[in-house]
Amino acid sequence: MSNERGPDHSRRKERSRQAILAAARALVTEEAYEKVTVEAIAARAGVGKQTIYRRWPSKSAVVFAALLALSEDADGQSVTLPDTGDLEADLKLVMRATVEEFTDPSFDRLIRALNTEIANDAALAAEYREKLARPLDEAKKSRLRSAQKAGQLAPDADLDLALEMLYAPLFQRWLHRSSPLTTAYADALVDATLRAFGPSTEAEPRKSTGA
Amino acid sequence: MSNERGPDHSRRKERSRQAILAAARALVTEEAYEKVTVEAIAARAGVGKQTIYRRWPSKSAVVFAALLALSEDADGQSVTLPDTGDLEADLKLVMRATVEEFTDPSFDRLIRALNTEIANDAALAAEYREKLARPLDEAKKSRLRSAQKAGQLAPDADLDLALEMLYAPLFQRWLHRSSPLTTAYADALVDATLRAFGPSTEAEPRKSTGA
Repeated sequence: MSNERGPDHSRRKERSRQAILAAARALVTEEAYEKVTVEAIAARAGVGKQTIYRRWPSKSAVVFAALLALSEDADGQSVTLPDTGDLEADLKLVMRATVEEFTDPSFDRLIRALNTEIANDAALAAEYREKLARPLDEAKKSRLRSAQKAGQLAPDADLDLALEMLYAPLFQRWLHRSSPLTTAYADALVDATLRAFGPSTEAEPRKSTGA
Repeated sequence: MSNERGPDHSRRKERSRQAILAAARALVTEEAYEKVTVEAIAARAGVGKQTIYRRWPSKSAVVFAALLALSEDADGQSVTLPDTGDLEADLKLVMRATVEEFTDPSFDRLIRALNTEIANDAALAAEYREKLARPLDEAKKSRLRSAQKAGQLAPDADLDLALEMLYAPLFQRWLHRSSPLTTAYADALVDATLRAFGPSTEAEPRKSTGA
């Protein structure tokens, strides 16, 4: 509908959207989440408060959109995982990149703020799952599926469970700041997950766990 | 020192402490955490606000103490894990109990509130680790260590990593409400962890307890 007002209007709208999201990201990384206001985001973006409220209902919605924009590449498509055919190498690459991401102080603040909102807001949690977690999980699962077809994972491996065991420990360590996130840790998670879900080396079939 | 004022004074102090902790637990399970105030806790416990502030610096400190009190048994000792000699059965028992705990609505609210505080307060996170997470982890690790001595886990198994892979997926599933927590899920986590950290030489097939 906005296109009725012409391409200039659309471009201006998109520029203002980008400015708002960049302002939200900058503010959340600069100060404590609870101190960031929609007013401050508007001021930083050089737009009126109402411009933000016309598009997003709350501060958490803007911050969430700002995070979401980070995971889109230039043409709005979400990322895929590397597939060189070597599952262990590919997963270690991805897990090491994840460790790097979580140890980046500005990312840390943003994700910590988002997790606070998600833990206490079931609707935002659902949106997070739908728009961010699920597409990422699907990309990861598709990499595991191709490994499964290549015989690098057990034919009956539960890929959802494998993903959880690969990622959840890193997430919990970060959230609770219980131990440092290191490259060695990323590698150890991959090794243990491959031991748990890799093909059985024995001739005998794996024990079925049901479910 | 309070004993100089006699056993009656000590008993009164302990009664008021218990009343405050019970009031904090009740309020946090009844309404949204951010709406709970120290005033409301004091009113519910039948004490003055200052009685709370003399002992705890903030709302989050009282709520944390209330949670901590739940994990102590009658004589203030923390729990130990069952050790029947059958690691798989013992872990499934514990993980099923954990699933039950996390699906209890009143526990859910309390732990969700606490996790919000922990994620955003590094000092509280440290206290949580020291007083709650570490003692529990030590109890769990001591069970894994006895299994390791009995040859049920690999001699070089990283027990910290094993614990994380056992518990973190359940915690993340609960925090993000991404999938239901079930008995089958508890069992699957145990099975996968035992595959990842069990002894590599499969001289005898692993046994299922049937459930």
